[in-house]
Amino acid sequence: MDHLYAVILAGGSGTRFWPASRRSRPKQFLAIGSPSPLLTTTVDRLDGLIPPERILIVTGDEHAGLVAEVCPQIPADNVLAEPTGRNTLPCVAWATAELLRRDPDGVHAVLPADHVIEPQSAFREAVATAARAAADAPTGLFTFGVRPTFPATGFGYILAGEELDGAGLHRVQRFVEKPDAARAEEFVADPAYLWNSGMFVWHGQAIAAALETHAPATWQALRSAPLEAVRAAYPGLAADSVDTGVMELWNDVRVLPIDYGWSDVGAWTALPDVLAADGAGNISSGGGQLIAEDSSGCIAHGDEGQLTALLGVHDLVVVQSGGITMVCPRERAQEVRKLVERTRAEAPDKLL
Amino acid sequence: MDHLYAVILAGGSGTRFWPASRRSRPKQFLAIGSPSPLLTTTVDRLDGLIPPERILIVTGDEHAGLVAEVCPQIPADNVLAEPTGRNTLPCVAWATAELLRRDPDGVHAVLPADHVIEPQSAFREAVATAARAAADAPTGLFTFGVRPTFPATGFGYILAGEELDGAGLHRVQRFVEKPDAARAEEFVADPAYLWNSGMFVWHGQAIAAALETHAPATWQALRSAPLEAVRAAYPGLAADSVDTGVMELWNDVRVLPIDYGWSDVGAWTALPDVLAADGAGNISSGGGQLIAEDSSGCIAHGDEGQLTALLGVHDLVVVQSGGITMVCPRERAQEVRKLVERTRAEAPDKLL
Repeated sequence: MDHLYAVILAGGSGTRFWPASRRSRPKQFLAIGSPSPLLTTTVDRLDGLIPPERILIVTGDEHAGLVAEVCPQIPADNVLAEPTGRNTLPCVAWATAELLRRDPDGVHAVLPADHVIEPQSAFREAVATAARAAADAPTGLFTFGVRPTFPATGFGYILAGEELDGAGLHRVQRFVEKPDAARAEEFVADPAYLWNSGMFVWHGQAIAAALETHAPATWQALRSAPLEAVRAAYPGLAADSVDTGVMELWNDVRVLPIDYGWSDVGAWTALPDVLAADGAGNISSGGGQLIAEDSSGCIAHGDEGQLTALLGVHDLVVVQSGGITMVCPRERAQEVRKLVERTRAEAPDKLL
Repeated sequence: MDHLYAVILAGGSGTRFWPASRRSRPKQFLAIGSPSPLLTTTVDRLDGLIPPERILIVTGDEHAGLVAEVCPQIPADNVLAEPTGRNTLPCVAWATAELLRRDPDGVHAVLPADHVIEPQSAFREAVATAARAAADAPTGLFTFGVRPTFPATGFGYILAGEELDGAGLHRVQRFVEKPDAARAEEFVADPAYLWNSGMFVWHGQAIAAALETHAPATWQALRSAPLEAVRAAYPGLAADSVDTGVMELWNDVRVLPIDYGWSDVGAWTALPDVLAADGAGNISSGGGQLIAEDSSGCIAHGDEGQLTALLGVHDLVVVQSGGITMVCPRERAQEVRKLVERTRAEAPDKLL
């Protein structure tokens, strides 16, 4: 598949993995739920399907050096460094313009840098399936829908419609906002509902047409602009997501269900979904070592070379990274932002 | 008081403050419950009463460099480096022999390196009081007895007898082993019972006579031996304590009660006795910074420059030191040795 390209979205600098994730090294550059940095794993996952010279990585200016560090095989020209974050739609528009210049017949797989997917081979097969279909679909936008394994309230859902062919592809009937718990229970019981994974495949001409229709200002600003013009235009672009700015509006959207291991690793509490626990349910992540004595259900993340030693504690998240130790109960890991805010006020030099 | 000397006992390499305390830097060289390393604070506490040139420090060979680091004002000749640890009696015997060579009229205050005592001025006054009495007591061994503030089961007690003079000194009626909880309740209600602090004052001739009587083999081996002979003899000495080897056997023992802040800082859980807590009962120790959100009763110790951030946790001990994070409930802090043993087996390079 010589015309298959990947666009890896490696922006973002969230706080949900603080203190491991910092402004200077956000989640996608860390080994969270993976043996290598998540971005490295995302590139490696394409091995044999898409070679490095056909992989673009979109990231923030300040993180371009980290991309080179964790993905040395990606040519420097393939790193698109945004002067400022503007959500995912401008990333996709810029990458689309760049790839169309290189290959007007290209098919693009757009993949977030920070998901954990197993087995890798099954995922490559899914990308190949969608890419073959996209090559023959001048208006089709393809997405992957993950078969729910629990009634998640943190994801949007896709309602799959009629099956389109023998390869498992379905037309998308509609996108559904994040549900409340009761609706999530209904969705998980109905095989037509899939998690919206935020991963896409399309022909370059198809996404270009969709951008032209639904995001004309952004598309016009980026479609044939030289780099300096892109950089100058960027801060003025609308910060829309591909999902709401294009996918939910386009009338030829198709979905390929996938039913193996996928996680967007959205918070510390997602680690048990992607890492093996010891006999007492303790998880060790991040290259550090864990000694857990009479302790259970704990999630420990330590920098390489660090040791976390637990005695008689249960269901805690314990993170040791870059001079900061954070401890909270698992059920409050979503509130770590409160600690980030207090650190910003009380120890600003520690936030970097 | 030109004939007043101090002998600071700075041996020991316990595990109760692991992972802050390591074999390479045990408790007395750390700022635990004190703004400076405990040994530094112990030397500084004598300021104005005993000058550095009259202070001996007894420590292990491997820690002589640390003594020089944290107490640069102490002359190198005043550091007695033991080739191996043999409990406190040999330390005292060696220091006694050394000081008698320097000054046959010397009065010696023998002080552990790792106690926290406040106010410092009151303590100096107590040492001076005992020293004045010792100067005129050729057979008297003096100790300090701390008025109990709670029914401690972790200390030995001293039963004080008749008062000897107007300065508050009493004859010691007897030493009492660590009591069970019921006896400790009786002791705390009886003003004649005092905690055995392990701090002593005596005339050099008095302790020499007591050693000659009750520890003749050790005393003969050290009393007039040159340094190389001391070092050669040391491994063969009996590992007795001053308390059981001399004090409890001698018939002229006197005690000065002290009733201000004293702690032997025996474990992480002793820190609330010597450090101020925030409004929620959280304690920060060791030069690190603590941010505690919706957390209470926690004891956090971090190396200089480290940040500990707690969210929604209660009554935990959280220690971050030298690449190790340790978390346990306060009530299990005494069991930290279990983690040391597991670390010895599973991560021996981390123990150092």
